[in-house]
Amino acid sequence: MTNEKKLNILVSNDDGIEAIGLQKLVEELKKIANVYVSAPHRQQSAVGHSITVFYPLRSFEFHKDGKFFGYAVEGTPTDAVKMGALIFYKDIKFDLVVSGINHGANTAINIIYSGTVSAATEGTTLNIPSVAVSLATFEKADFSYAAEVTMKILKDILIDKNIKLHPKTLLNINFPAVPKEDIKGIKITKQGVSNWDDYYEIRSDPNGRDYYWLSGKMNILDETDDVDIIAVKNNYISITPLHYDLTDYKMIDEVKNWELKI
Amino acid sequence: MTNEKKLNILVSNDDGIEAIGLQKLVEELKKIANVYVSAPHRQQSAVGHSITVFYPLRSFEFHKDGKFFGYAVEGTPTDAVKMGALIFYKDIKFDLVVSGINHGANTAINIIYSGTVSAATEGTTLNIPSVAVSLATFEKADFSYAAEVTMKILKDILIDKNIKLHPKTLLNINFPAVPKEDIKGIKITKQGVSNWDDYYEIRSDPNGRDYYWLSGKMNILDETDDVDIIAVKNNYISITPLHYDLTDYKMIDEVKNWELKI
Repeated sequence: MTNEKKLNILVSNDDGIEAIGLQKLVEELKKIANVYVSAPHRQQSAVGHSITVFYPLRSFEFHKDGKFFGYAVEGTPTDAVKMGALIFYKDIKFDLVVSGINHGANTAINIIYSGTVSAATEGTTLNIPSVAVSLATFEKADFSYAAEVTMKILKDILIDKNIKLHPKTLLNINFPAVPKEDIKGIKITKQGVSNWDDYYEIRSDPNGRDYYWLSGKMNILDETDDVDIIAVKNNYISITPLHYDLTDYKMIDEVKNWELKI
Repeated sequence: MTNEKKLNILVSNDDGIEAIGLQKLVEELKKIANVYVSAPHRQQSAVGHSITVFYPLRSFEFHKDGKFFGYAVEGTPTDAVKMGALIFYKDIKFDLVVSGINHGANTAINIIYSGTVSAATEGTTLNIPSVAVSLATFEKADFSYAAEVTMKILKDILIDKNIKLHPKTLLNINFPAVPKEDIKGIKITKQGVSNWDDYYEIRSDPNGRDYYWLSGKMNILDETDDVDIIAVKNNYISITPLHYDLTDYKMIDEVKNWELKI
């Protein structure tokens, strides 16, 4: 990366185009890149890697402080990234997709339900290196530090170190929600195995009919500090390289040994 | 597995509880198991691993030919599996979750968008070995053969060979849509890398506003015959062991070498 050419970054999220986490991220990334926004028009959390195929999609231009800010898509994070790259900004050659900053961690099992990560995954399906960024709290949060450090990390990788990312590169970054003086550093991690101990609350509507609401608590099963969820718990910024090859290679030989026949 | 105890199988899908593929599967599985159905009330394809957390869920008893058939959930495949295991049939100890039979292949990149596979993935998050079954055609299809062979494969594994499956076992089975005399056998495969060459059709509504409809064609990039999409193309029944550890282990050392600091 020389100074002659500025990076082109497509930004999306799953909390919707009005989310503070996305707006802080855009502000920071503008310091190092041309930033283009295509995000869901509203909150889409826990949509996983949904894509809209049975219905048409609509979008509208979203303005902020009287200026064009980006495209709002009436669809999922995956839809927003795909439409951003293939329609709204189709003449731009993107160096990166950045999704976030999500309000809430995307670590361990949560990754499979994550709209934030799926937006980044969709970037890699389009052969654009992609990054998902999350802040590990559901409380009211200040995204400034996470946005600033995300910018610095990306600047370090893409500009200062001039690392050429493989188009399928997918980095999942999680920030602990603690004051910056408590942050211990960056840890490169793997996905944790911690799971949900979940249950449904059964409630009754005014007509006496039952409805169900998912609830539960995260069970931290991991013990080593090289997994995302523990790194964040220990006040490290966690960076996990992910991919979408779901093959369980270790099981292949075992299944072959079953000698299944028809 | 002795004859004294019958298997308990939870069946779901993403095509909805009225889909023929599910009904054929249930018919066959009843020959070897107690079968319990919890499926979305209607078509949910391409929902990925969505889960409903912001809204309450409702369900209703679905009857077929005047008899109780199963629970229809007004949610996603993931919701249906979770509610099946945790609410409707909470006293049953399930040996297996089977999702399908999907109308359309779930191979290569399609796996990441697949509601069928995500229902099976959800089974493994609940520590129930799970199987996703798909028939590789979008044309009108006869699911009888795929349903029968699925039952036979599961009987072979769980009853005849009495194999004790690890609770995180996830098998993704894809049937070619050809007459049974053309089926060449079973192949244990890995997930292909073939991708979509997709685009949006831009249309105009009666008021002159644009809307977008996703379209495209699958690009077969794989060449070796040990991947799901090629195995099915070559008329093999493809079985791929999957898991939901998305860590790209090969990238961990590379990212560590970047020596990122804050």
